[in-house]
Amino acid sequence: MDRAACAIRDDHDPLAERRARFALPHGVLYLDGNSLGALPHGVADRMREVVAAEWGVGLIRSWNDAAWVDLPDRVAARLAPLLGADPDEVAVGDSTSVNLFKALAAARGMRPDRRVLVTDQDNFPTDLYVAGGLAQLRGDLEVRVVAPDAVTDALADDVAVLALTQVDYRSGARRDAAALTAAAHEVGAVVVWDLAHSTGAIDVDLHDWDADFAVGCTYKYLNGGPGAPAYLYVARRWHAAAQPPLQGWFGHAAPFDFSPDYEPAPDARRFQVGTPHVLSTAALEAALTPFDGVLPADLDAKARSLTDTFVALVDEHCGDAVEVASPRDAAARGAQVSLRHPEAYALTQALIDRQVIPDHRPPDLVRFGFAPLYVRHTDVYDAVEILADLLRTGAWDRPEYHRRRTVV
Amino acid sequence: MDRAACAIRDDHDPLAERRARFALPHGVLYLDGNSLGALPHGVADRMREVVAAEWGVGLIRSWNDAAWVDLPDRVAARLAPLLGADPDEVAVGDSTSVNLFKALAAARGMRPDRRVLVTDQDNFPTDLYVAGGLAQLRGDLEVRVVAPDAVTDALADDVAVLALTQVDYRSGARRDAAALTAAAHEVGAVVVWDLAHSTGAIDVDLHDWDADFAVGCTYKYLNGGPGAPAYLYVARRWHAAAQPPLQGWFGHAAPFDFSPDYEPAPDARRFQVGTPHVLSTAALEAALTPFDGVLPADLDAKARSLTDTFVALVDEHCGDAVEVASPRDAAARGAQVSLRHPEAYALTQALIDRQVIPDHRPPDLVRFGFAPLYVRHTDVYDAVEILADLLRTGAWDRPEYHRRRTVV
Repeated sequence: MDRAACAIRDDHDPLAERRARFALPHGVLYLDGNSLGALPHGVADRMREVVAAEWGVGLIRSWNDAAWVDLPDRVAARLAPLLGADPDEVAVGDSTSVNLFKALAAARGMRPDRRVLVTDQDNFPTDLYVAGGLAQLRGDLEVRVVAPDAVTDALADDVAVLALTQVDYRSGARRDAAALTAAAHEVGAVVVWDLAHSTGAIDVDLHDWDADFAVGCTYKYLNGGPGAPAYLYVARRWHAAAQPPLQGWFGHAAPFDFSPDYEPAPDARRFQVGTPHVLSTAALEAALTPFDGVLPADLDAKARSLTDTFVALVDEHCGDAVEVASPRDAAARGAQVSLRHPEAYALTQALIDRQVIPDHRPPDLVRFGFAPLYVRHTDVYDAVEILADLLRTGAWDRPEYHRRRTVV
Repeated sequence: MDRAACAIRDDHDPLAERRARFALPHGVLYLDGNSLGALPHGVADRMREVVAAEWGVGLIRSWNDAAWVDLPDRVAARLAPLLGADPDEVAVGDSTSVNLFKALAAARGMRPDRRVLVTDQDNFPTDLYVAGGLAQLRGDLEVRVVAPDAVTDALADDVAVLALTQVDYRSGARRDAAALTAAAHEVGAVVVWDLAHSTGAIDVDLHDWDADFAVGCTYKYLNGGPGAPAYLYVARRWHAAAQPPLQGWFGHAAPFDFSPDYEPAPDARRFQVGTPHVLSTAALEAALTPFDGVLPADLDAKARSLTDTFVALVDEHCGDAVEVASPRDAAARGAQVSLRHPEAYALTQALIDRQVIPDHRPPDLVRFGFAPLYVRHTDVYDAVEILADLLRTGAWDRPEYHRRRTVV
């Protein structure tokens, strides 16, 4: 496959024009949108307006006059189509970790006569920590951590909650969410999906999956900005019964009545807690506009095409110098391909020096993320050319690339 | 007291020059800094830099190159002197409500053989909700809600935690934090202070109080911006023992090792949870610069002077048309004075129409906040003149002021 073949794929890409909605730095091949999404145009102007006009001049009045009070709802409405959800099933705010705590606690509460939470040992570490913290807090919860391929076997009738991340942050492996949800429901368990590496990148359809709860991150493929607020999904059937463990005034049915008694909002909003982070949430709202009219299936098709192209080019140009650590079947992976190399850290630094930006995950992975809205097939080609050149020449093996000066 | 007397007080105010650090809208008398602080100069520029340069161009590299990873620590170091704390005793992030949950759960954990949490019925509603949510989650916690003046009597040897807000959000009444902490310690209880209406406004000295845990808000008197990240204080003596209920990767001792096992950071940072909200936290960092070199005692002196001036002028000019609902002894109140009026909502709207901005709390209070860094004694004079005029002429009693179009 040559560069012209990649250009033809770009010509036929229905999402191609979306790239112009992003302020990408010149000359950089950015393949780390799975870690931090690129800056959409319009966000900087929106932030200036929020800070200088709405905060500076409007002051407290902006809660009403600039409709800050509705910000989380407006963002929920923008996220819903990307999740296959209704807007009132989505609560926006806090971090993914905090939302996961809420979702796990609420899901556990839906099965009071069971005490087991099943998750897998390759889950994102914080997901394991959060489950462990919840188990410490309430004595009647046992966290059962199993091998990734043992999850289905672990589903027994003592299982209250199955908690999984759909796309593995290291390998990029994608789980069949509909099938696993069905298997969990078969034994009467409630499922919590972490969609951190799914939303905005691949096909997500929570209604179709018959999902119970889900959480996710907006600063990766959704481009919401560093540390942008996260979201929590609660299926309509749980709206009345799900008890938020973090009961805050912004999740109250009537927050501005200042009642001493807690009455949760009737829908997913009961999982809101404190005052929304207005600046971060306003940035997120503006950042989501490039997704207008985009369907999750469109994103999925583009992600498969980009990752297929990457794998084919790596096979062709890099030989045995790296190993593809992600599934070779596009349907079995997210918008990410990881390559294994014994000196993955140094190789990552060398790539960054050559303006190709992936990231490193210990011990031996270089992760490449292919954000469907702004990565082109020609970018994939150019990145693999540089990677192949580094590997062929050994130019990645310089002392300064081995020194660990970076924490992230 | 005439306007000239107020001007003389401003001339002798050691904090007078700090007002120039804020972008206050012309002609507005802003007396709602207890709800949302004014915009400090420098924040808008800093946000532009974070968004356009650090996010847009630096992308993922900015976690290292722009030191995003240290943002919460840098903010903690700025907050510490305003709290009478050391920087490693302060964790920055999440909302006040979420931090209160963490602090209550951790404090409860310090007294495993006791099951009672004492709080008062006039506490901020969300504080009651959070305590209730924690009690629902773990069966072995009983929340005992008592009258504000019955708190000391409620301290018995079955009390694990005393949880109070220092300054009442309605009346502005200030509790003697050192005395109540000592009384709680006397019976072996652990104390959690909510400093939402204290920090940045009055004298706070957590070391001097011998405090255990505290939480607080940065978007009121600390001017961090709408919904700015909150903070949590843990006294050094609890650093090793305090168990965070929300165990997230950013509170891990080595977050970037991605270990499957949770090992909490050795200090207050263990109470960090998810990825920090970089945009909001960067705004907060810039917003705190006007406090450089300001001591809590300076803030307290100014707050007493402003509120004393306000009470004296209200007495002089408003007669019986309103009632001072806050303590008349400046040492017994925060930087806030509330006035009682049967049509407080309409009166608040009329004041806003005349460019005096307080806020309303149901059913019958108008709250006036006096942020020590930017409110002048002459502002107090001008505001009372307008208030007195509205009351004397009855101009506040127009139909449009009674219609509730505002939620906040």
